[in-house]
Amino acid sequence: MPQLRVGLAQINPTVGDIDGNRARALEWCQKAADSACHIVLLPEMWLTGYPIEDLALRESFQMASERAVEQLAHDLVAANLGDIVVVVGHLARSEAEQKLGVPAGAPQNAASVIHQGKVVARYAKHHLPNYGVFDEFRYFIPGNKPCIVRVCGVDVALAICEDLWQDGGPVARVAQHGAGLLCVINGSPFELDKEDARAELIARRAREAGTAIAYVNMVGAQDELVFDGDSMVVNSSGELIARAPQFEEGLMAVDLDLPAAPAAAVLRDGTEVSIISEWPVQPYRPLRSTISPRLDDVAAQYRALEIGLRDYCNKNKFKSVVLGLSGGIDSALVATIAVDALGAANVYGVSMPSEHSSDHSKSDAAELASRLGIHYRTVAIAPFVKAFEDSLELSGLAAENIQARARGVTLMAISNQEGHLVLATGNKSELAVGYSTIYGDAVGGFAPIKDVPKTLVWEMSRWRNAYAVLQRRTVPIPVSSIEKEPSAELRPGQKDSDSLPDYAVLDALLDAYVEQDLGHDALVAAGFDRALVDRVLLMVDRAEYKRRQYPPGTKISNRAFGRDRRLPITNRWTEPTQNH
Amino acid sequence: MPQLRVGLAQINPTVGDIDGNRARALEWCQKAADSACHIVLLPEMWLTGYPIEDLALRESFQMASERAVEQLAHDLVAANLGDIVVVVGHLARSEAEQKLGVPAGAPQNAASVIHQGKVVARYAKHHLPNYGVFDEFRYFIPGNKPCIVRVCGVDVALAICEDLWQDGGPVARVAQHGAGLLCVINGSPFELDKEDARAELIARRAREAGTAIAYVNMVGAQDELVFDGDSMVVNSSGELIARAPQFEEGLMAVDLDLPAAPAAAVLRDGTEVSIISEWPVQPYRPLRSTISPRLDDVAAQYRALEIGLRDYCNKNKFKSVVLGLSGGIDSALVATIAVDALGAANVYGVSMPSEHSSDHSKSDAAELASRLGIHYRTVAIAPFVKAFEDSLELSGLAAENIQARARGVTLMAISNQEGHLVLATGNKSELAVGYSTIYGDAVGGFAPIKDVPKTLVWEMSRWRNAYAVLQRRTVPIPVSSIEKEPSAELRPGQKDSDSLPDYAVLDALLDAYVEQDLGHDALVAAGFDRALVDRVLLMVDRAEYKRRQYPPGTKISNRAFGRDRRLPITNRWTEPTQNH
Repeated sequence: MPQLRVGLAQINPTVGDIDGNRARALEWCQKAADSACHIVLLPEMWLTGYPIEDLALRESFQMASERAVEQLAHDLVAANLGDIVVVVGHLARSEAEQKLGVPAGAPQNAASVIHQGKVVARYAKHHLPNYGVFDEFRYFIPGNKPCIVRVCGVDVALAICEDLWQDGGPVARVAQHGAGLLCVINGSPFELDKEDARAELIARRAREAGTAIAYVNMVGAQDELVFDGDSMVVNSSGELIARAPQFEEGLMAVDLDLPAAPAAAVLRDGTEVSIISEWPVQPYRPLRSTISPRLDDVAAQYRALEIGLRDYCNKNKFKSVVLGLSGGIDSALVATIAVDALGAANVYGVSMPSEHSSDHSKSDAAELASRLGIHYRTVAIAPFVKAFEDSLELSGLAAENIQARARGVTLMAISNQEGHLVLATGNKSELAVGYSTIYGDAVGGFAPIKDVPKTLVWEMSRWRNAYAVLQRRTVPIPVSSIEKEPSAELRPGQKDSDSLPDYAVLDALLDAYVEQDLGHDALVAAGFDRALVDRVLLMVDRAEYKRRQYPPGTKISNRAFGRDRRLPITNRWTEPTQNH
Repeated sequence: MPQLRVGLAQINPTVGDIDGNRARALEWCQKAADSACHIVLLPEMWLTGYPIEDLALRESFQMASERAVEQLAHDLVAANLGDIVVVVGHLARSEAEQKLGVPAGAPQNAASVIHQGKVVARYAKHHLPNYGVFDEFRYFIPGNKPCIVRVCGVDVALAICEDLWQDGGPVARVAQHGAGLLCVINGSPFELDKEDARAELIARRAREAGTAIAYVNMVGAQDELVFDGDSMVVNSSGELIARAPQFEEGLMAVDLDLPAAPAAAVLRDGTEVSIISEWPVQPYRPLRSTISPRLDDVAAQYRALEIGLRDYCNKNKFKSVVLGLSGGIDSALVATIAVDALGAANVYGVSMPSEHSSDHSKSDAAELASRLGIHYRTVAIAPFVKAFEDSLELSGLAAENIQARARGVTLMAISNQEGHLVLATGNKSELAVGYSTIYGDAVGGFAPIKDVPKTLVWEMSRWRNAYAVLQRRTVPIPVSSIEKEPSAELRPGQKDSDSLPDYAVLDALLDAYVEQDLGHDALVAAGFDRALVDRVLLMVDRAEYKRRQYPPGTKISNRAFGRDRRLPITNRWTEPTQNH
């Protein structure tokens, strides 16, 4: 059987940085050539980054992406890399569709195959995801032609991301033809348990098609999304041969013995195979491939948050962050993630005690800062609060909110003065029920744990401390921050449990309502207390306006607030009870 | 020719208020029966409201919508309204699709035809818009069958909104059959010049199909969208016969002489016509129909803003609003819109002068409040600013922003204490270039003029004053607010023109970049100064993070910030220059 060495470039693009992504494509092709790969795969939409949202519709951007493909082909030859077959994802202008009455240059999500300075074949994604965080029907004209190139005597077919997930489509057609390898380039974002679903799917499709599959996914973050890599290769029996480490940039070179191309160089539907090289390479000693272990759930989610924050800062050119340290667990976890993402020298903690702040709040905040080694200062908010209270007659919630807003103004002032990005420290449970002060604790350019329910905040904190013990490093989070009863400390003796149920119950209910979209009756049938269901659903529905103005943050769950769950603000719907 | 009296119910639903919308459907059917209509058309997605976003995917909501259809059929009979043929839009669960492997109950955007207590026919929208503000591929399974009912001897075909805009599809098929009337139910949002496009389209389709068209659209607002009604009827030659007033709720009853139904009660594709009544009614004396005049552009946009704000308040149960009055034109226009929307008694103006506020700012704010007759108070922000400045060492932008944020905190405190909705007063030009302070002047639950460029702010203000003169009422906006040079007054002698170009130039450039999506080279080719293009594009691109946290506001342009223009925050793209 012919041999083929496939390079999977599991790498991190930057949206809009077409020149930079092109330059980095060349670097990774050089690495693949250094590893003697015959073909190298770069991720979906590599040259533009992903997702690019409405940039896809801008003609100047489409043209720049097309120019970058040509330029890359040229640069590869200039760098003596003309021999390696390069598969790269990019935004394309469709010439074919132009003839069918669609506007000239209607965009496609495409992969070009480059060899010897030329684009020898091009594939356009057939199946456009338009659910969850995806809006690809808004942007792309679907492709409808398979694409096969013959490389070293092996027929290699292309597919892009969703094409693999949908039954039928290009995968089925290339299987009929007898392709030896299916290469799938991806921009597949992380969410909990997705890596298992991916591995199972890839193995199943390989068995269905009787074709080995090389699956490459990008890494890094773009606004709310984190891409976890998890690139892999399976053989035609669906056996896993190689798997890359999650979340890490790198080139994985994998050797495969593949069936020789069929005699016919034309598919049943008339599509011609693009011939790059008809003849197998001389037999060689294959590399040993590696199957990297998966991270466990909490570790993977923590790592996603760390990368989400790091890339938001790096790609938006923020060097440092500032956040309020309350002594509670949320801000402690965010500070720890920030240190892991950016280094302690780039993290600025601010304690902003009020008259209602307990002693342990102040000491726990200081203790956290000391353990993490971050910059730390105290700004008393009493004078600000007093100035507002002297002038405005406030009581109840209005008075409580003034404290949170004085803190928000303080953090923004420090940010404006010193140039740090402000981090909001709210968790998903609070965001769900509206347990936050808009323009108060909700201020920030980024909200690292907005998709982390409170119970997972505790679990992650315990995990991170245990990890430090294993690493023989300083345990970052004070135990008392983990174990104390949660309180916003906006009035004397206030506890979260005054107005919210136990977080274990609340989070289970929120998971069922927000992530699984169960209605009232289904929630009661699932065992939740009817009165609690009524109360919590109303809180969640009424807090939509706050969520709309909340900063972006990394998605790690199956349904994050934001682009993943889109509800109207004006919404009189209340879940009907059984007696309705 | 058989006669038919068609009732077009141009009415205002509330998203999620299925019970309320159903009850109001019954009321309007009663009015249609009182006017002796044979058939009455209610708008697209009437029972659920529109757009419902991810509510469409929730099973409990789908079930409630289906129950409401059944209940309405039952209620009509109970109210002795069984004879009238009712066409009503709603969210449907698709039984047919269930068999094709799509999840049970996959939702459709449907119209049911109700007669004598039964749903006699159902149509599902074929063409799902998925551009601009629309995401219907996310929600709905497209229909693929035409729907024709025979009413009083006339074959009446159904279509929903986008079905009319797309070539081919159900309109072409019903024309082949020889339907006498095409009824199109709509949820078509207002934007500038759309009413002309609609009228032209409807006339063209009528001529193409040789069929009269009755087009009914909803009125009222839902979050960012305003529906302007503009319901109309054209005959089979495309002549306009009747047109309803824009933006106003009402029933328009129109008499038509229509061709008798063809002998065949089956379409070429096998679809059966649902027979409600084979025989024409006894000849009667037709009503005289009215063609209401259109509002001019500025008047229509002003009215859209007024309704956008009124419905946001009404449907979210806010009785009153509060806003800062700076003496400038933006807050003056917003206050005037608020008075028109909610009445002066429900509008609370707050002057919040700082040391940099000019005398005319304070006097113009007071003068405006007096002219409008709204509640008015002054809160000096100097003590708040001083408290922050005493504690934090601030300079430059950080010091300027403290003033804006002290005002934001003040407005939110009044809102929390007194229950008013806070209005943000920023205009589209400022929002575009980021000329606002996040958590400062950007605070608010709603931003009435966020889609109004500064030059249109002036034009609208002059128009509103002139309108008051025509009406012999108090001219609301002080002339000096219109004529003074714009300034944020955050530092001594500051003027907008220090950092921004002339607004006439800026707005033209923003229109070309934001609404028309032109790239750098096209902008320069259109005559804009190259250096200005570079500077403004960078400002617009960098302000994306601020826009993401800005309150919602009414869309009146062809491309509003928000759901209409979706760009990543993390975005290194800079428009290439010609030499690139």
